[in-house]
Amino acid sequence: MLESLKEEVFEANLLLPKHNLITFTWGNVSGIDREKGLVVIKPSGVEYDNMRASDMVVVDLMTGQKVEGSLNPSTDTPTHLELYKACEDIKGIVHTHSRNATSWAQAGLDIPALGTTGADYFYGDIPCTRQMTDEEINGEYEKETGTVIIETFNKRSLAFKDMPGVIVYSHGPFTWGKSPENAVHNAVVLEEIAFMAYQSTMLRGGRIEPMQKTLLDKHYLRKHGKNAYYGQGNK
Amino acid sequence: MLESLKEEVFEANLLLPKHNLITFTWGNVSGIDREKGLVVIKPSGVEYDNMRASDMVVVDLMTGQKVEGSLNPSTDTPTHLELYKACEDIKGIVHTHSRNATSWAQAGLDIPALGTTGADYFYGDIPCTRQMTDEEINGEYEKETGTVIIETFNKRSLAFKDMPGVIVYSHGPFTWGKSPENAVHNAVVLEEIAFMAYQSTMLRGGRIEPMQKTLLDKHYLRKHGKNAYYGQGNK
Amino acid sequence: MLESLKEEVFEANLLLPKHNLITFTWGNVSGIDREKGLVVIKPSGVEYDNMRASDMVVVDLMTGQKVEGSLNPSTDTPTHLELYKACEDIKGIVHTHSRNATSWAQAGLDIPALGTTGADYFYGDIPCTRQMTDEEINGEYEKETGTVIIETFNKRSLAFKDMPGVIVYSHGPFTWGKSPENAVHNAVVLEEIAFMAYQSTMLRGGRIEPMQKTLLDKHYLRKHGKNAYYGQGNK
Amino acid sequence: MLESLKEEVFEANLLLPKHNLITFTWGNVSGIDREKGLVVIKPSGVEYDNMRASDMVVVDLMTGQKVEGSLNPSTDTPTHLELYKACEDIKGIVHTHSRNATSWAQAGLDIPALGTTGADYFYGDIPCTRQMTDEEINGEYEKETGTVIIETFNKRSLAFKDMPGVIVYSHGPFTWGKSPENAVHNAVVLEEIAFMAYQSTMLRGGRIEPMQKTLLDKHYLRKHGKNAYYGQGNK
Repeated sequence: MLESLKEEVFEANLLLPKHNLITFTWGNVSGIDREKGLVVIKPSGVEYDNMRASDMVVVDLMTGQKVEGSLNPSTDTPTHLELYKACEDIKGIVHTHSRNATSWAQAGLDIPALGTTGADYFYGDIPCTRQMTDEEINGEYEKETGTVIIETFNKRSLAFKDMPGVIVYSHGPFTWGKSPENAVHNAVVLEEIAFMAYQSTMLRGGRIEPMQKTLLDKHYLRKHGKNAYYGQGNK
Repeated sequence: MLESLKEEVFEANLLLPKHNLITFTWGNVSGIDREKGLVVIKPSGVEYDNMRASDMVVVDLMTGQKVEGSLNPSTDTPTHLELYKACEDIKGIVHTHSRNATSWAQAGLDIPALGTTGADYFYGDIPCTRQMTDEEINGEYEKETGTVIIETFNKRSLAFKDMPGVIVYSHGPFTWGKSPENAVHNAVVLEEIAFMAYQSTMLRGGRIEPMQKTLLDKHYLRKHGKNAYYGQGNK
Repeated sequence: MLESLKEEVFEANLLLPKHNLITFTWGNVSGIDREKGLVVIKPSGVEYDNMRASDMVVVDLMTGQKVEGSLNPSTDTPTHLELYKACEDIKGIVHTHSRNATSWAQAGLDIPALGTTGADYFYGDIPCTRQMTDEEINGEYEKETGTVIIETFNKRSLAFKDMPGVIVYSHGPFTWGKSPENAVHNAVVLEEIAFMAYQSTMLRGGRIEPMQKTLLDKHYLRKHGKNAYYGQGNK
Repeated sequence: MLESLKEEVFEANLLLPKHNLITFTWGNVSGIDREKGLVVIKPSGVEYDNMRASDMVVVDLMTGQKVEGSLNPSTDTPTHLELYKACEDIKGIVHTHSRNATSWAQAGLDIPALGTTGADYFYGDIPCTRQMTDEEINGEYEKETGTVIIETFNKRSLAFKDMPGVIVYSHGPFTWGKSPENAVHNAVVLEEIAFMAYQSTMLRGGRIEPMQKTLLDKHYLRKHGKNAYYGQGNK
């Protein structure tokens, strides 16, 4: 069942340690089959060294029920499902506790858009959600984590397609993309720009102006707009 | 004698360089056989490349006397023994000078609980001990290091089980766990969250609020409480 | 056509990941055949793992037109061409988003000359360009990036030969040299001194005095002046 | 001639890249034969990958003249010679531009003694020399670099044996020891404690108290004093 997607999700999970995004098992990648309405995700708390493609767990997008797999799905599965339901364009999701992005999440601050490196991928500041309420934390916590991300995007009029990542307050980053691998790609970019934004901000004594809007537009749209001209024309 | 525990302690010691927790020989791991009242620990100042399981030293928990082994036990052995005596749950202990945790110890500051990454393992701020007195330093120094750790836990009403680590003022971290390997695991986590706490604190100009108590409870108890639901149910 | 230069440019591009200067495809190296007036450059957005020497693209220095190659040249090609036209001594050019240099570019600050490490290569502060105007960004952006670099050098009376690098505001570093490999060498140096300048500046509370002019002269001229005596006499 | 010392110095030089202390050729190690009054040192500006033991250069301690070797000795040779002449105990010397120690040198600040990690090796703050005068820089610069180090030790009543390293203002670290390898060992320690001192200092807002004298004494003397009890008794 969904062997090809399981392989794809499995391989994308292996990219997390390869890119130094995780310590131990602190991360997970999922992918979706939109036609069947099924999500494939890493099992919970399993060591990367022993993991196989067949360990990937299949869950139903709408009900969250496990459809196939002998192991429990990642604890964060309900967060992934909320995001898949919120935006059709999302085909893969990544959650990590990567050190630089998480440092910003712990500070409760947006990662400011400061340069063209980020502007090629993220159309503006990467938002940090609000704190969750006690009710949300003590209720369906992992699902509510998805809800608060969606609320953040709605309140700020952000499009999931143009802002493929978020940091959750006191927690860490989620990223997404047009495939599981692409979501990992965005997780790597987020971690890199979180590092650079830290240093730039410290050099400016903790206060820094965002980059020019014109330059942000230029870089984002030269890769993602209708008139994109970056690369070999197949992106 | 205690061949299996020696092997376990030896392997756990080898994890220290693997996880970049040590420079040269700046670290040691021990394990305990509670029934026999014997502790197995790394020898003092021996290079990791040349070390074998049979080099591990056996000492008596209560007397601190060497029971077996041709080499001297780690200089920090008396600290380990005090901790083993203070809490039955401790089955393995690690001491390192890992760079990020040690930076906090040198600053004489607790590592604040700022996010879910730490909350999965440490139930609150990771305490920094008080400075030791001249009498303690010039007396049975390594034993007194254990005493001051225990004093810290008692004064703050901390449970060794829920707070598997400490940083000693002007010195560095000790961590423990339900096995030597688990103690190393906690040492890796401590080092990672020390790094992130540093960046988060600097982003906030040196002053940062601790995370919500509700979120701390949620994460710690979802992994460690009676109703834990993280992982595959065997933790 | 230009097989030897293609090989040289290809090999220099491979040095970027080797020296940890790039993430994914975020960098490019070019070289020039001054006699033929042709520039060889990396193709746009191609993965380093799959790249071959024959993928290098040949463009005309004066017209910017592609002369040979099945792939599109790097998007940054017009910036390279402006620099080649501005200074005959430049034989190779590198562009990256290396993390430390880019952090300074995002802060919009020159990288101050603080020590002999940099003084051996860069004769003074490494300049950060001014912000580009909306007209420049919305016009021939990549060409204008070259123009603003040249303007910076002219306004400050800097010689490209004595200052083989620059950081572009909100963007990142460009370096150059007497060959593609030498340009990469300077990119490595720039990244290293950007890191050290960050730490030195932070240690001084954000404000730091430049190094002594006498010491700067001594180090730069002992390697580059008429009376150079560093190395084996063949530099 | 001095084949064994050449091999020892060569191997010690190879430890510099192994421990990430250098970029390109930015470092050198020397050793001394006290009976013959000859110093063996790395050649100037030679790539580590191509270097062989037979490339090491032999110079006379008192005259500085090359006694054997086809290549030029390291430019820093006169600094090494001054240090060998200043203290009989020095048997090996290392110079690098390692990033953390150099950051402190560029800030013109001593590296404060903040913890037991450093106290095991360096008996107090690691001194930063004063700025050199224009006369010193424009005179016998490399020799004067040695002179200013010695002046620093004399003025502060420091013993080379108890303080096996220094940072030269706007330049970088020199370390020494009882052998070339031991000098590299101290260079690694210096770099590690420079990193930790940076973070500790920043956590304290740029101002930090030195560690307790009693604790400094305890750690230094437990390894180096008459009553040393660390290790296996052979240090």
